[in-house]
Amino acid sequence: MRKLHLNAFLMGVGHHEAAWRTSGADPSRVTDIRHYQELARTAERGKLDSVFLADSLSFWGDIKYHTLGGLEPLTMLAAMAVVTEHIGLIATMSTTYNEPFNVARKFASLDHISGGRAGWNIVTSASESEARNFGGSLPPHAVRYARATEFVDVVTKLWDSWEDGAVLGDQTEGIYADKEKVRAVEHQGERFKVSGPLNIPRSPQGRPLLVQAGSSEDGKEFAARYADAVFTAQPVIYSAQAFYADFKKRVVKHGRNPDEVAILPGLSAIVGSTEREAAQLQEELGALVVPESTVATISEMLGVDLTEHPLDQPLPDIPGVVEGQRSRAGVIVDMARRENLSLEQLIRRLSGNRGHRVVAGTPEQIADQIEEWFVKGAADGFNVMPPTLPGGLDDFVDHVVPELQRRGLFRTEYEGRTLRGHYGLARPVVAHA
Amino acid sequence: MRKLHLNAFLMGVGHHEAAWRTSGADPSRVTDIRHYQELARTAERGKLDSVFLADSLSFWGDIKYHTLGGLEPLTMLAAMAVVTEHIGLIATMSTTYNEPFNVARKFASLDHISGGRAGWNIVTSASESEARNFGGSLPPHAVRYARATEFVDVVTKLWDSWEDGAVLGDQTEGIYADKEKVRAVEHQGERFKVSGPLNIPRSPQGRPLLVQAGSSEDGKEFAARYADAVFTAQPVIYSAQAFYADFKKRVVKHGRNPDEVAILPGLSAIVGSTEREAAQLQEELGALVVPESTVATISEMLGVDLTEHPLDQPLPDIPGVVEGQRSRAGVIVDMARRENLSLEQLIRRLSGNRGHRVVAGTPEQIADQIEEWFVKGAADGFNVMPPTLPGGLDDFVDHVVPELQRRGLFRTEYEGRTLRGHYGLARPVVAHA
Repeated sequence: MRKLHLNAFLMGVGHHEAAWRTSGADPSRVTDIRHYQELARTAERGKLDSVFLADSLSFWGDIKYHTLGGLEPLTMLAAMAVVTEHIGLIATMSTTYNEPFNVARKFASLDHISGGRAGWNIVTSASESEARNFGGSLPPHAVRYARATEFVDVVTKLWDSWEDGAVLGDQTEGIYADKEKVRAVEHQGERFKVSGPLNIPRSPQGRPLLVQAGSSEDGKEFAARYADAVFTAQPVIYSAQAFYADFKKRVVKHGRNPDEVAILPGLSAIVGSTEREAAQLQEELGALVVPESTVATISEMLGVDLTEHPLDQPLPDIPGVVEGQRSRAGVIVDMARRENLSLEQLIRRLSGNRGHRVVAGTPEQIADQIEEWFVKGAADGFNVMPPTLPGGLDDFVDHVVPELQRRGLFRTEYEGRTLRGHYGLARPVVAHA
Repeated sequence: MRKLHLNAFLMGVGHHEAAWRTSGADPSRVTDIRHYQELARTAERGKLDSVFLADSLSFWGDIKYHTLGGLEPLTMLAAMAVVTEHIGLIATMSTTYNEPFNVARKFASLDHISGGRAGWNIVTSASESEARNFGGSLPPHAVRYARATEFVDVVTKLWDSWEDGAVLGDQTEGIYADKEKVRAVEHQGERFKVSGPLNIPRSPQGRPLLVQAGSSEDGKEFAARYADAVFTAQPVIYSAQAFYADFKKRVVKHGRNPDEVAILPGLSAIVGSTEREAAQLQEELGALVVPESTVATISEMLGVDLTEHPLDQPLPDIPGVVEGQRSRAGVIVDMARRENLSLEQLIRRLSGNRGHRVVAGTPEQIADQIEEWFVKGAADGFNVMPPTLPGGLDDFVDHVVPELQRRGLFRTEYEGRTLRGHYGLARPVVAHA
C-alpha cells in the first residue's frame, strides 16, 4: 500500500514569525545546536522521512522583528546526524553561490557521516539581498537555472566517480584503491571545468537524495528531470491537484517513473486537543504579528519593495510576477487579487505559513485533511511546518502521526536506514559516459 | 610561566603514508566519523589545544597506494564538536575556491555549535590538481595571496557585523535584534563586493582563531598580519630558530604583540617504550612504503612531474623552486641537494613526515626534544603528527603529555572553554570602520 512521506521542516523556534514571542519560547535557541538535535530526535521518534532545513544567504526578513532560521545547514546536519540513526537529513544549498566540487564533497561527507541519510535541496537563490553578498548583481532567472542544470550534472558525475568496490584496502599488497574504478570526470562545460574524481569514495546512498522546490516553468522542468522529491507551496487542493497532475506528466516526459518522485506540499499544522484550542492558538500567534514587521519579508517574497506601500491598500502592480518567473509570488499575488486583499489583510493571511497550506484542528481533523490530499491526487506527503518548535513538532509527532498510523497511511517502523530507502528509491548505479 | 601549545594534526589512520598497512590498522576508518570523534576525545583527554584538519580539494597522492585524509573538514568538525567540550577544532579552508560570505558563515556556525572552539587554517590552494576541479587554471601565487588578503578582510568584517548584545530577544515588545548593533559591511573591493551583515550573530569567540601555514615571502607577511597561530615545516632546529626570529620580527612590524602569535612546527613523534622500540616502529613503517607510490606525492609537493624520473638519480632542476614561490618545496630541494640524495633516498627520508621534523624515542627523549625547541626560540608548541591513528595519538597523550606536564611545560587542566582561551588570546572587540 502506498504510504505518505512526511518531512519535518525545521526553522528556528517555529515557522510562525511570531513563534519566538509565545510564552515558553526561548529565542536564544535559534543558534543552539542542542535545540536542533532534539528536534531531529523528535522527528525520528515520529518515524518521519527526514528533517528539512531551508536556507538563505541573507536575512529572510527584518532582523529587528524576526529571528534567524538557524546556522549554516550542512554544519548543523552533521551535528544532528551523530545523535540519530534513521532520520533523513536534507539541507538547502545554492547552485548560484557555490562550486560543484565543494557541494558534491560536502553532501558525500554528510552521507558518509550519517550512514546514507543526506539529501540536497537544490536552490538557485532568487533574492537581491543574497546577490549583494556575492558580488552585487542577481543573475537572471534563466541564467541561474542554466547554471543549476550544469551544476547538478557535474555533482552527479563526481558522486559517480568512484564505483562501488573501488576501495580495496589491500594491506598486504599495499593497494588502497582500484584505479580502474576511480575515474576522472573531465567535465568541460559552458560554465564549469571540473576534472575530478571526487576525493571521497562513493557514499552509502551512492547519490544523496535530490530535492527541489522551483515552481516556475524552468523550476518545474528542472525538478521533473532531476528531483527525487519536490517541495511546493499549495494553499488549496484544486491548485495542488493541478500541480500534481502536471508535474507527474513532466516526470514521465523525461522518461522517469512518476511514482519515484514524491510531491510534498508544505503544511502548516496547528494541532489542538479540540478544534477550539487549535483556533485559539492560531489566533494568539496572529495577534503577536506586527504587520509592519512583515512588509520586508513580503517584499522579498514578491521581489518588490512594499515598505512605503500603505497597509490598507491593495498590492501595486508587480512586474516580475507577470513574467511568470516567480511562481510562489504568483500564487500569492493571485490570491490577493482574487479576494481583493489589502496589504495588511494579505500579511495576516500569510502570517505563519508564507503561502503554504494551513490546517488547524484536532489530530483527527488534521489527519482527515492530510488523507484527503493524499488520496485525491494532490500530494504524496507533506513538508510539515510546525508553527512553534519544539512544541508544534511534539504535537504533530505525538498526536497526528499515531492517527495516520492507525489509518495505515504512515509507517510504524523504519524499514531501512537510508533516506532513499525511506522514499522507496533504489541506490543509483554509477552512470558511465 | 610560558606554556607549550599542542595540536593534534589528524590525518586518516595516520600521517605515515604506510600507516594503513600496519597490522591493526583499519583503512575503512578514514571515512568513519566515529574514528575522528574518538581521536578528538583522546586529544581532549590529553588537554591538547586543538585538533587540526588539513585539506585538499583533490587527491594528495596516488590513490592506488594512499588512503584519503578524511571527509570534508567543516562537516567532520561539527560532528566532533558535539562529543567534546574543550578541544579546539581547526579546519583548513581555501580562499581561492570559496566565497567569503560562505566561509564566514560556516566558521561562525562551527563556533556557535562548539561554544567557541572553531579555528580556520587559511590556505590558498597551490596545486594544479585542485585548480583542475575549479575551472582549470591555477591563479599565480601573488594573485592567490591578494585574493586571500581581501578575503580575510571581508570575513573579519562579516564576523564583526553583529556587535555583542545585538540580540535582544524582547518577547514583550516583539523586538528580536537591535538594528543599531547589526551593521551592513558594504565591502566594495577589487575582488569582492559583499553587503552583509552576516546572517549569524557574533559567535562565542567573536572571531574564530586564524591559523596560517604559508612560508613563502607572501605567506609569511600574510601570516604576520593576520594569523593567531602559524604552522610550519621545520626539519631541523637551526632553520626553525631562524624562521621563529624572522617571523616574530614581522609580527612586530605589523604592530602586533609577538607573544600573541604562536609558531607551531609540525612534529612527527614516534613513541616507543624504549629507544629501540621506537626505532623499530619507524623502520617497520619505512619498510612498508613502496617508493614508486610516493613519486606522485613528491611531484605534487615540488610542483614538477617526477613520475618518469629514475629512482636512483638525484632530482632534476626544479624551476618553480628557484622563484622562491614554493617554500616547503624549497626546504626539501635544499636538503636533497645538500646531501646529494637520489629520488628514492629522498622518498624514504620524507616518508611519514612530508618534510616535517621527526623525533623517535622514549617519551622522555621526545619531551627533551620538544623542550629544547621550546626553550631555545624555535617553537611555541607543535602540530603533532602521529604516524599512526589512533595508536600514535594514544601514545603521545598517554606518555609524552604526562612527561611534559611533570616538567611544567604543559597544562594539566583546561582553564577555559574557548580555543582563543587555550592560546591565551582575548576575545576581539568589534572593529568599526
